[in-house]
Amino acid sequence: MKAVVISVGEELVSGACVDTNTAWLSLALAAHGVVTIRHVTVGDDVTDIATAFRQAMSDADLVVSTGGLGPTPDDLTRQGLADALRQPLEHSTEAEQQIRALFERWQRTLHESNLVQALIPHGCAVLENPRGTAPGIAHDTARCRVFVLPGVPIEMKTMYEQHIVPRLSGGGAVTLRAELRCYGMSEAELGERLADMMARNRNPLVGTTASGAVLTVRITARSCSESEALRLLDAEQAEVRRRIGQGVFGVGEEELEDALAKLLTAQGRTVATAESCTGGLLAQRLTNVPGSSAYFFGGMICYADQAKTDLLGVSVELIEVHGAVSEPVAVAMAQGCRARAGSDFAISTTGIAGPSGGRPEKPVGLVFIALASPTACEARRFLFGEHLTRCEIRDRAAKTAMNMLRLHLLRREPTGQT
Amino acid sequence: MKAVVISVGEELVSGACVDTNTAWLSLALAAHGVVTIRHVTVGDDVTDIATAFRQAMSDADLVVSTGGLGPTPDDLTRQGLADALRQPLEHSTEAEQQIRALFERWQRTLHESNLVQALIPHGCAVLENPRGTAPGIAHDTARCRVFVLPGVPIEMKTMYEQHIVPRLSGGGAVTLRAELRCYGMSEAELGERLADMMARNRNPLVGTTASGAVLTVRITARSCSESEALRLLDAEQAEVRRRIGQGVFGVGEEELEDALAKLLTAQGRTVATAESCTGGLLAQRLTNVPGSSAYFFGGMICYADQAKTDLLGVSVELIEVHGAVSEPVAVAMAQGCRARAGSDFAISTTGIAGPSGGRPEKPVGLVFIALASPTACEARRFLFGEHLTRCEIRDRAAKTAMNMLRLHLLRREPTGQT
Repeated sequence: MKAVVISVGEELVSGACVDTNTAWLSLALAAHGVVTIRHVTVGDDVTDIATAFRQAMSDADLVVSTGGLGPTPDDLTRQGLADALRQPLEHSTEAEQQIRALFERWQRTLHESNLVQALIPHGCAVLENPRGTAPGIAHDTARCRVFVLPGVPIEMKTMYEQHIVPRLSGGGAVTLRAELRCYGMSEAELGERLADMMARNRNPLVGTTASGAVLTVRITARSCSESEALRLLDAEQAEVRRRIGQGVFGVGEEELEDALAKLLTAQGRTVATAESCTGGLLAQRLTNVPGSSAYFFGGMICYADQAKTDLLGVSVELIEVHGAVSEPVAVAMAQGCRARAGSDFAISTTGIAGPSGGRPEKPVGLVFIALASPTACEARRFLFGEHLTRCEIRDRAAKTAMNMLRLHLLRREPTGQT
Repeated sequence: MKAVVISVGEELVSGACVDTNTAWLSLALAAHGVVTIRHVTVGDDVTDIATAFRQAMSDADLVVSTGGLGPTPDDLTRQGLADALRQPLEHSTEAEQQIRALFERWQRTLHESNLVQALIPHGCAVLENPRGTAPGIAHDTARCRVFVLPGVPIEMKTMYEQHIVPRLSGGGAVTLRAELRCYGMSEAELGERLADMMARNRNPLVGTTASGAVLTVRITARSCSESEALRLLDAEQAEVRRRIGQGVFGVGEEELEDALAKLLTAQGRTVATAESCTGGLLAQRLTNVPGSSAYFFGGMICYADQAKTDLLGVSVELIEVHGAVSEPVAVAMAQGCRARAGSDFAISTTGIAGPSGGRPEKPVGLVFIALASPTACEARRFLFGEHLTRCEIRDRAAKTAMNMLRLHLLRREPTGQT
């Protein structure tokens, strides 16, 4: 089964935005044995859109487009598809009902222009969009299936799962994928440990990617039978886990905060945060997890030195003697936070996120992280590197803080397995 | 002048890598008045490559391709171009000399397979690659110019500057772009206000995009002279600002926190935060800005009800009577925070981020935001919609909180202009 993926948008064809939808769709389709043979990106031009659809329908069994379904005059995918099919646009009562229901649910005023989103080419079907106001469009010809989705990634992905995946069954070869997520080592180090498993044309195929210091080991297993593919995949995952150990914190799209959520919940422990350089990022990450109120008390963001004293009781003298970015202040912050919150653990961060404020003895990227537990307070010094941006340094500090707590909790686990 | 940009590579069409070359090339070409009408990505298939070239040459004045010029058997762009031109591949002595010179300079051993890179279609010209072993290829027909570049970004960019830019001059047209960023209205509402400005083939061209509730108005002005293009661009920006008013918070890549940074700094005011549902996100956004310690004191994250009482002095009775997610509690949080921080302003958030915890009278997406100022405390109720994810609801709440403070500060500004 061959697919062509079309993306529509002036912001894409002009280069103002990098298109990530097409790559996502092609990867997703590949998991169902569909080979993408072409991506085409066109601007908000009805002729170009129509041509893209027409050529795609003549070359592929499956055509998926994203973008150009909004309510503004530059959203022309509906018209482009209608022209490609040589059909008029007509009002769909079903689409209008979906749009009206959504506005009602959101308690928002429907503008007349929103109803342009209820137009679809004659003979096409409406695809429900549970996350936005742009319904999708589906059309089947004798040899080609066409799916038209909005460009907003979350809407596109939800609709792909809901409307396209169920129609992709069948095929033959099964491709299964798994991803293991790791923290606390470099990609080169990870690559060395897995070198022999990463040979090309091997089955399963093992590859690594790095994003924001989180390393992902991607495993792809292929077989004619699903059970054999699953067996291959499971064996390979077990081998990777054996080599990486506690460096593996999760699978799929799990984040460090998800790993912490499991450990804290299982052990019935609570945590609070005292943040300086991360400025709320650590707490934000912890509370990304639904239900985090079960183990996250809250925290203090002590951006100004005064806040460290007022909110956490760090003594003025300690800050004067050692500086706000120092191990003793990190320790006092964590201990002060734990005492005030009455939690089992407290984590503190203090550092220089830059881009200015660095000095030779305390350069940009220097961060102290302390973890106060019922029995002790462990503090560590990190140098995240002056080549990183402010955003990246804060990100590394928050992740490293979560990883410190994760490793601490794992040492208390009987099995040590996340 | 119209361009089609082609990228070649299995890793791109399969979705394993996101293609950034085409966006870069389209932006670069636009600066010379060349409008990219289409991007096409194909895999390592000689027929698909040839078809992409043939269609591009029939639709555009300029065709630029990247990728598929390496020495391995899956590098087929040379053959694809030859097929499209119906010319045989032939050995180029000039290309071989360039390759040999490079290997000598790098003190590397030349493999026989490297000389496949010296093949070019009959009648084409060789383009020197100063940074790699793959020479480029150029071909002029009566109505179209074709440039074939390698896919390695640094090689592609260097060769674009060296070989393509000099041949684009004389065309004359200059394209200038501006982006205005807006918050606090729907894309449909924005589209209605700008409808007549968004007609196609208008100059300047106006388009809108939405990402995370931030709306971007993109303006593209074209002219033969740079000064005229600038005049057009400025006039159009002024008109958009006139229609959107204080909805415009910034330009280019500015975020709401950047707009706040300017206003707070200019007015010499400070702010603190008291977050429940946003869990640190609001503070994290505020401290994204380097130098934010000048106006951001710090804050409290009061995730547990106990934390609202312990850290902010919200009375237990108030929470019992109205619930933690209520206007009175939002007000008490903001006032308690402002008193403890000693800041000019304090912003609080309390809401139901979901996915669970919603009830008919307090659904997921319900958020109260309060802004305590030296003279009053303003509180508002928002319904961000159950269709949004937890992450999106928190994101909207943090942005809306920043926007409330921004609009409050603007009311104090003599001009009201960001």
